[in-house]
Amino acid sequence: MKISEVKPGEVEIQGWIENLRDKKSMQFIVIRDLSGKIQVTVVKDENPEIAEIFSHATLESTVKIQGKAVANEYVKLNGIEIIPSKVEITSHAEAFPIGPESSIDQRLDYRWLDLRTERNQLLFQFQSTLINAMREFLLNKNFIEIHTPKFIGTASESGAEVFEVKYFDRKAYLAQSPQFYKQMAMAAGFERIFEVAPCFRAEKSHTKKHSTEFTSFDVEFSYINSFQDVMELEAEMITYGLEKTKEKYGDKVKEVFGVDIVVPTLPFPQMKLNDIYDELEKRYGFTVPEEEKTDLTTEAERLCERLAKDKFNHEFLLVTDFPPQKRAFYHMRQNGILQGYDLIWKGIEITSGAQREHRYEELKKNVEEKGLGKDVEFYLQFFKYGCPPHGGFAIGVDRLTMLLLNLPSLKEAEFLFRGPDRLDP
Amino acid sequence: MKISEVKPGEVEIQGWIENLRDKKSMQFIVIRDLSGKIQVTVVKDENPEIAEIFSHATLESTVKIQGKAVANEYVKLNGIEIIPSKVEITSHAEAFPIGPESSIDQRLDYRWLDLRTERNQLLFQFQSTLINAMREFLLNKNFIEIHTPKFIGTASESGAEVFEVKYFDRKAYLAQSPQFYKQMAMAAGFERIFEVAPCFRAEKSHTKKHSTEFTSFDVEFSYINSFQDVMELEAEMITYGLEKTKEKYGDKVKEVFGVDIVVPTLPFPQMKLNDIYDELEKRYGFTVPEEEKTDLTTEAERLCERLAKDKFNHEFLLVTDFPPQKRAFYHMRQNGILQGYDLIWKGIEITSGAQREHRYEELKKNVEEKGLGKDVEFYLQFFKYGCPPHGGFAIGVDRLTMLLLNLPSLKEAEFLFRGPDRLDP
Repeated sequence: MKISEVKPGEVEIQGWIENLRDKKSMQFIVIRDLSGKIQVTVVKDENPEIAEIFSHATLESTVKIQGKAVANEYVKLNGIEIIPSKVEITSHAEAFPIGPESSIDQRLDYRWLDLRTERNQLLFQFQSTLINAMREFLLNKNFIEIHTPKFIGTASESGAEVFEVKYFDRKAYLAQSPQFYKQMAMAAGFERIFEVAPCFRAEKSHTKKHSTEFTSFDVEFSYINSFQDVMELEAEMITYGLEKTKEKYGDKVKEVFGVDIVVPTLPFPQMKLNDIYDELEKRYGFTVPEEEKTDLTTEAERLCERLAKDKFNHEFLLVTDFPPQKRAFYHMRQNGILQGYDLIWKGIEITSGAQREHRYEELKKNVEEKGLGKDVEFYLQFFKYGCPPHGGFAIGVDRLTMLLLNLPSLKEAEFLFRGPDRLDP
Repeated sequence: MKISEVKPGEVEIQGWIENLRDKKSMQFIVIRDLSGKIQVTVVKDENPEIAEIFSHATLESTVKIQGKAVANEYVKLNGIEIIPSKVEITSHAEAFPIGPESSIDQRLDYRWLDLRTERNQLLFQFQSTLINAMREFLLNKNFIEIHTPKFIGTASESGAEVFEVKYFDRKAYLAQSPQFYKQMAMAAGFERIFEVAPCFRAEKSHTKKHSTEFTSFDVEFSYINSFQDVMELEAEMITYGLEKTKEKYGDKVKEVFGVDIVVPTLPFPQMKLNDIYDELEKRYGFTVPEEEKTDLTTEAERLCERLAKDKFNHEFLLVTDFPPQKRAFYHMRQNGILQGYDLIWKGIEITSGAQREHRYEELKKNVEEKGLGKDVEFYLQFFKYGCPPHGGFAIGVDRLTMLLLNLPSLKEAEFLFRGPDRLDP
């Protein structure tokens, strides 16, 4: 049974040896599982065989204990203790090579020990709940989940950042995102789909927000009227996810991470890129050279947190009306304006979304303008046989977790981080 | 609005041109979306501009229509038709390069068109529902979903079938399964986890049940007493999944695929490997040379369908008591018997499960016996610092779909198949 469910009477529990005090005539052992902790008390004279077992046991070994749980007001831990009748050490632990003083990189070398803390266990319970709440939101809206291939035949989008795979006698590449195949689903008439899956980027970045492999939550849907529909769906989905997660873990997250989960109000505020630069200058005296105003600079992105707070009393800010030059060719443009957006949260872009260009001739023009040619030839075919207007977005799940729990980097937000210098364990 | 929701009154719909009859004074157009079909009727004299648009429209183009829906008992399609007031062709379709007579490989070249059928759309709605029902089952039992890395530093398990990636100045490999990292989660005290993610196998097989990339549903949990606990959980999970899926799609699946979804009874029957060979001989006169009886041959596997039916009136059969020689080193053994099982359904193995060896010293012995050494050194470390008894299993989602819907091969069950000769589109 779970330790948290122990009541006076016969019990069998399993867990880790969290603490062990071996006194002259008594042993006090604290056993931990995911649900809680409990004290096991051994009177050596009464139970010499069990005392012998615990005298050799090391901290963090795992153990299976049968015995009698009894109420005892002197026991600090829930006022209950177990008097064991049978004890089996199920695995033996050596002394830990890392501790709280270790650097994150040392801790990553022994990630399974680093994860064996209440904090990290909460973190991944929280992440699982958040993702599955967003999933639930979409399933309730008749979206289906698909699984697109990670192997692709050509190094599309931007060859430089694509990983190459030895694929029998030829080469394959790893998908940087499911973008093309999400759109293929639209051309197939799937109407409303999402995918939660790994993406691979061969970027030699060492920032806190980059990793070579990350989990992306990708959404795409048809028959939209404009990218306003996309922003609306995303805002609702995030709000639903935060609401559900706060319900379940709000108090614990506050206690362990010192973070208040704020359920945002709908709709999320939105501003045009130009207006943001105007306001940043007016309000905070912040400006950048004119030629950098075609996108949000890192510093401008950071200031958006303050701007959203001051102007809208909101944590989120949707940024629209980017010029299309620096944006992917598959985004729709209208009168020279990108029909897409970035969503900024806590000073960092967590998502890009857009209405896509679904018209073959227009798309072909964009492709030629960007000089992409052959690499996206296969993708262009998807639009030759009819394709409804559609749009979508992607959220980096690890980045979302990092921001939500105020973690110092993705190294803490991923189960097992992968970077240019990190492939182990 | 969805086509299935159209009622008399003003409407706006979007969809595909499924059919178009251009008569002398009238046009009859059938529009289709995922929810259904509806007739649009144009009286040419009354609406010459719209008639002009439709006169140039091609089948499978997409269209947006505003107009008035009116009841008309002469219209076969639901007794309703739309009289359009505004029509916009949102994308133009060329003539299809494939048709029902095309081979599966020709159809895969244009998979997005191949998927644009009621049958294939149902297939992936069904798959999404099945996977998410199994997910729901686990979440309800306090499992969490994790995302383990697909990049690994060493070509573990069996180097030959591992894809190699150019990873900056070194090599990485693609995980064949999340096995090692699922177990890492156990060593981290996560207790109950699952993952639904792609797996990569560099096998040059061209059978109906192999692909180089597939979606695996992986489960692992701690504090089990034996692999009986693993079999029980899996049987319950599959039963729950089939129940929910039958509820939602049972009738449609029967109609479109001619398949009755059978919700199995619990517990699933189990037999020892030796007993199976005895019964196959006794009942059907089937036998294989003694030295092949260390595993189920393909033919024996196939006959298990009949055996399960005849002996237990059940579709599933759990096969136990394999000798450990041919099995992975991480499965627990007891008195020379593997503490694991295969689950056979409709004559094909859909899953392998086991209690894992969680004791460092025992595991090390297994590793040495198999001569694995360096490649699994990193994995061995997971067990040095305490690890609870645990077990788990994996189900190939595509294979499950193939068997359930009686599809000829994985090429039909995956959104976009990947094989030794297939990386496109």
